[in-house]
Amino acid sequence: MNIIVFSPHPDDAEVLMGGTIAKYAQKGHDVLIVVVTIPIQKEKRIEESKKAAAILGARLSILDLNPHELVFNRRTVETFDSVIRDFPPDIIYTSWIHDSHQDHITVSRATIAAARRNRCSLYMYEQALPSGLTPYGFRAQAFVDISDTIELKIKSVSAHQSQIQSFSEQWVQGIIARATYMGFQISTKYAEAFEVVKEIKDI
Amino acid sequence: MNIIVFSPHPDDAEVLMGGTIAKYAQKGHDVLIVVVTIPIQKEKRIEESKKAAAILGARLSILDLNPHELVFNRRTVETFDSVIRDFPPDIIYTSWIHDSHQDHITVSRATIAAARRNRCSLYMYEQALPSGLTPYGFRAQAFVDISDTIELKIKSVSAHQSQIQSFSEQWVQGIIARATYMGFQISTKYAEAFEVVKEIKDI
Amino acid sequence: MNIIVFSPHPDDAEVLMGGTIAKYAQKGHDVLIVVVTIPIQKEKRIEESKKAAAILGARLSILDLNPHELVFNRRTVETFDSVIRDFPPDIIYTSWIHDSHQDHITVSRATIAAARRNRCSLYMYEQALPSGLTPYGFRAQAFVDISDTIELKIKSVSAHQSQIQSFSEQWVQGIIARATYMGFQISTKYAEAFEVVKEIKDI
Amino acid sequence: MNIIVFSPHPDDAEVLMGGTIAKYAQKGHDVLIVVVTIPIQKEKRIEESKKAAAILGARLSILDLNPHELVFNRRTVETFDSVIRDFPPDIIYTSWIHDSHQDHITVSRATIAAARRNRCSLYMYEQALPSGLTPYGFRAQAFVDISDTIELKIKSVSAHQSQIQSFSEQWVQGIIARATYMGFQISTKYAEAFEVVKEIKDI
Amino acid sequence: MNIIVFSPHPDDAEVLMGGTIAKYAQKGHDVLIVVVTIPIQKEKRIEESKKAAAILGARLSILDLNPHELVFNRRTVETFDSVIRDFPPDIIYTSWIHDSHQDHITVSRATIAAARRNRCSLYMYEQALPSGLTPYGFRAQAFVDISDTIELKIKSVSAHQSQIQSFSEQWVQGIIARATYMGFQISTKYAEAFEVVKEIKDI
Amino acid sequence: MNIIVFSPHPDDAEVLMGGTIAKYAQKGHDVLIVVVTIPIQKEKRIEESKKAAAILGARLSILDLNPHELVFNRRTVETFDSVIRDFPPDIIYTSWIHDSHQDHITVSRATIAAARRNRCSLYMYEQALPSGLTPYGFRAQAFVDISDTIELKIKSVSAHQSQIQSFSEQWVQGIIARATYMGFQISTKYAEAFEVVKEIKDI
Repeated sequence: MNIIVFSPHPDDAEVLMGGTIAKYAQKGHDVLIVVVTIPIQKEKRIEESKKAAAILGARLSILDLNPHELVFNRRTVETFDSVIRDFPPDIIYTSWIHDSHQDHITVSRATIAAARRNRCSLYMYEQALPSGLTPYGFRAQAFVDISDTIELKIKSVSAHQSQIQSFSEQWVQGIIARATYMGFQISTKYAEAFEVVKEIKDI
Repeated sequence: MNIIVFSPHPDDAEVLMGGTIAKYAQKGHDVLIVVVTIPIQKEKRIEESKKAAAILGARLSILDLNPHELVFNRRTVETFDSVIRDFPPDIIYTSWIHDSHQDHITVSRATIAAARRNRCSLYMYEQALPSGLTPYGFRAQAFVDISDTIELKIKSVSAHQSQIQSFSEQWVQGIIARATYMGFQISTKYAEAFEVVKEIKDI
Repeated sequence: MNIIVFSPHPDDAEVLMGGTIAKYAQKGHDVLIVVVTIPIQKEKRIEESKKAAAILGARLSILDLNPHELVFNRRTVETFDSVIRDFPPDIIYTSWIHDSHQDHITVSRATIAAARRNRCSLYMYEQALPSGLTPYGFRAQAFVDISDTIELKIKSVSAHQSQIQSFSEQWVQGIIARATYMGFQISTKYAEAFEVVKEIKDI
Repeated sequence: MNIIVFSPHPDDAEVLMGGTIAKYAQKGHDVLIVVVTIPIQKEKRIEESKKAAAILGARLSILDLNPHELVFNRRTVETFDSVIRDFPPDIIYTSWIHDSHQDHITVSRATIAAARRNRCSLYMYEQALPSGLTPYGFRAQAFVDISDTIELKIKSVSAHQSQIQSFSEQWVQGIIARATYMGFQISTKYAEAFEVVKEIKDI
Repeated sequence: MNIIVFSPHPDDAEVLMGGTIAKYAQKGHDVLIVVVTIPIQKEKRIEESKKAAAILGARLSILDLNPHELVFNRRTVETFDSVIRDFPPDIIYTSWIHDSHQDHITVSRATIAAARRNRCSLYMYEQALPSGLTPYGFRAQAFVDISDTIELKIKSVSAHQSQIQSFSEQWVQGIIARATYMGFQISTKYAEAFEVVKEIKDI
Repeated sequence: MNIIVFSPHPDDAEVLMGGTIAKYAQKGHDVLIVVVTIPIQKEKRIEESKKAAAILGARLSILDLNPHELVFNRRTVETFDSVIRDFPPDIIYTSWIHDSHQDHITVSRATIAAARRNRCSLYMYEQALPSGLTPYGFRAQAFVDISDTIELKIKSVSAHQSQIQSFSEQWVQGIIARATYMGFQISTKYAEAFEVVKEIKDI
């Protein structure tokens, strides 16, 4: 299968669904991480993203949209359209429509609009932390057991050295705590959780 | 009564509430369809819209806003303000605020903002298909029995030949299926359904 | 896989997900339809249910709870617990928590409570019609293409002769219209739609 | 038209929609207030209800269900069924499904279930105060201008002397404040507001 | 404590939480009202805002953003970031994310994004009236008893003479009615109500 | 202050807000844990609850309602009424209204009904795990930093030996992970999170 993961900034894909990406890759699926914008430290963060994607076994594409022009309009949707045209996905993952960050909201809405043919499944991962508190509660619906890939996930997150420096070591601890907490919900060690926009079930 | 129907693109009004428009017109009400933007095939689609409006007995106004500049901002609201000032409505219909398409969301939000005096009723019609799947469920609240005007509706939809060509004949079948499904909910043959933003009830 | 379908009354399973049940059965999965209560015409309706289940290739279990004592309490949950213990499911389907009918709400809540180990997926099908209008909109999230099993579905629905008599032929037309409408949303001929409570994704 | 107003306890109908009831009555419609249960001071409160209904021009029916047995089950729905069978309504009003009070929730759910034929409109009025705070916000959708009947409303509310004694004069002030506040929203002096469950629109 | 109140236009802060502001000020807290944009009558309205802020005992800052460029994008968030950096708040108040007015929505979203460190509490006040009706119901969660400061509130509102002229005297009556209505909900004379985005509880 | 914590079963209070209880107690507030029902192992679990309450510095009351009769009706609300009458609270904590477990829902609804005077604040804690997955997302709004009381919390949880035996050691790890995850959201080590029903803010 072809799987697209839209990542508003470098590291969102790894932090919020790195274990799931690694699992897809291990099963032979073709995962493309699409980083939408890089507001600062562009070169350094591209380097980190490359390392992280390699760890997970995913391909990487950098849209590099201007962060000051990134709003939910026809231009952005057209850009996402072309990503989907070039790499026709069976499944798409994107950010949460109720995230607090303007770029996460825009990426979520543009993905939903671009996926309008409804011939693929579409899921949203959670908000990044700290920063994601909004007037909405995330509805964890679809769980992936990542007990076998938690180490790859942490390794891929750790490739983002610039973020560990700015958020401190507590950042990684919070990521592990979330995976433990989500795992607990389905009686396994580690899990990642998603909200379903639409799903084409294959029976 | 004066009734305004905001239609993000040509055909939205006909597809989603053509039967209701015809019914208003037959009762002697004055219905104005306002097409907001026409991204492609402008001349052809204006022709089709004219034919469709004539079939339903409605007036037609083409705002023809630039689709690449159509976002929810003061300029768009001011444009909608002037529509309302020129044709003071008793009732307004607009697109669904939770639609997937950027233009439908913008039109919905701009209508809600422009209707701020709250002296008229305001309803939202459903999402267009295929393309409308979002993280929300449409709340069908207000039903109009269109058993008497389903033929006019289908005729007006069929006036949009360009769409039938691009979506195939299944498009019209889906539209009839929706009307049948909505009709079934109120124990009649065909119906159209709306979500209520606000309603000034006349007792 | 073992799949349990809780059906508040005879025919709910067939009307709302008969195509999906047939599809599971054709793929060799073991589907158990659990009819919870039969308020009237008990013998006749059991006969009809048996025929319908046979058509779909599913097993049938009749809990036959007293309809006047069916409320969401510990006793009901314990009954559902024992169903799950006897036939450990990989997937459960149940009625919609926001349905209008007291039995549908009770069955939905009891299923959610009984599935508390969270080791299986849980979906809710839509409300029955006419009768399902409530202050909520159904969030169609997971779609199953039933183009190949629509005939079996209609046959199984038609096995419920008592219902066709009480609702008239329009009942079957409404069911086909819903399948067509849902199919249109994912660009196929016929589909059934579900809201996700929780899903253990197998990658 | 026939209009049924389900009132969980005496005074709910008058407090929350007395102005609307008076308006219907003045236009020649037949309004039936159905008081569901009377937990205390039964005789006194029936007297007050009779006076209040007479002031508004409505008929009164007292179901007098046992308050300790009033839950959302088949028995309660059957009782509501018989009310609807005896007085076939064009419109039904009931309490809010998200109210805090057990009886208000039960009455709301039982009304929604009993109105399952979907051939009449169904609205919910707001929560009573003080006591209505819950984890939900009321969605005021349908507004009735009651500037002409506010005096009748206050008179009908004042007929409930027992409540004025238990809540103090502030109770009536709060009721007027709510009508003023709702009126302000549609640019009139006084209004009452409702949430729409379903509406059969007559065009 | 430092408290920031984002006010999309002059008067929003006073109309929707003037009593609360006065109460904070009387307790010695430092309240900063930040007016974001002034679409018309700029000089006059700044004068009125200064008077109103002085009456409440609050400081005033005028961002004076161009109303035609005010959308939810990185530039706006950066502007809000700098407000927060210059006056590090313990609590922030902002407009409602589901308001009808484009500026209120933008201010709400930009505040939520700018408060991303999550180290301060964040509340939303209600919509202004008339004009606030949207497809959402405000969830009044946090109540402040303003019986002691209602007079200051009305005085501060009255400082906005230009608004009284455009909305008529009924405007002030509506504001008092809302405070009475909200007060009634917590059994006091006057109150203001807020929806909680996030709250760092100090025990 | 007087604080009531309704705990459907033994251990819910400790698992979901033990750190907050300890913090209140350390500040000299009077916390009463009210255990509503004990379905099995009654004596053992009362013993454990006593130990746990003592560790947190809270008082304990055991309602011991019959678990097979615990539904949301007038009788249950009257029982909660009497708890509130005997120990007039400034703040109440209760279970989540959207929990999956029938007893948690009933306790939540009965608390909301019993707190109808609206003169105290009312919060809901999260669902227990594993078992809490429902068609709703918890809206974490109010956070309490429990970094100083996490050890007391874990000690109080560990007093429930019967639960550790039935859920295994992973149960405690999940509880710590949740506290870490919630702490991360407000940039501290450990936190507990609540959804606000209503809050009387003291300024």
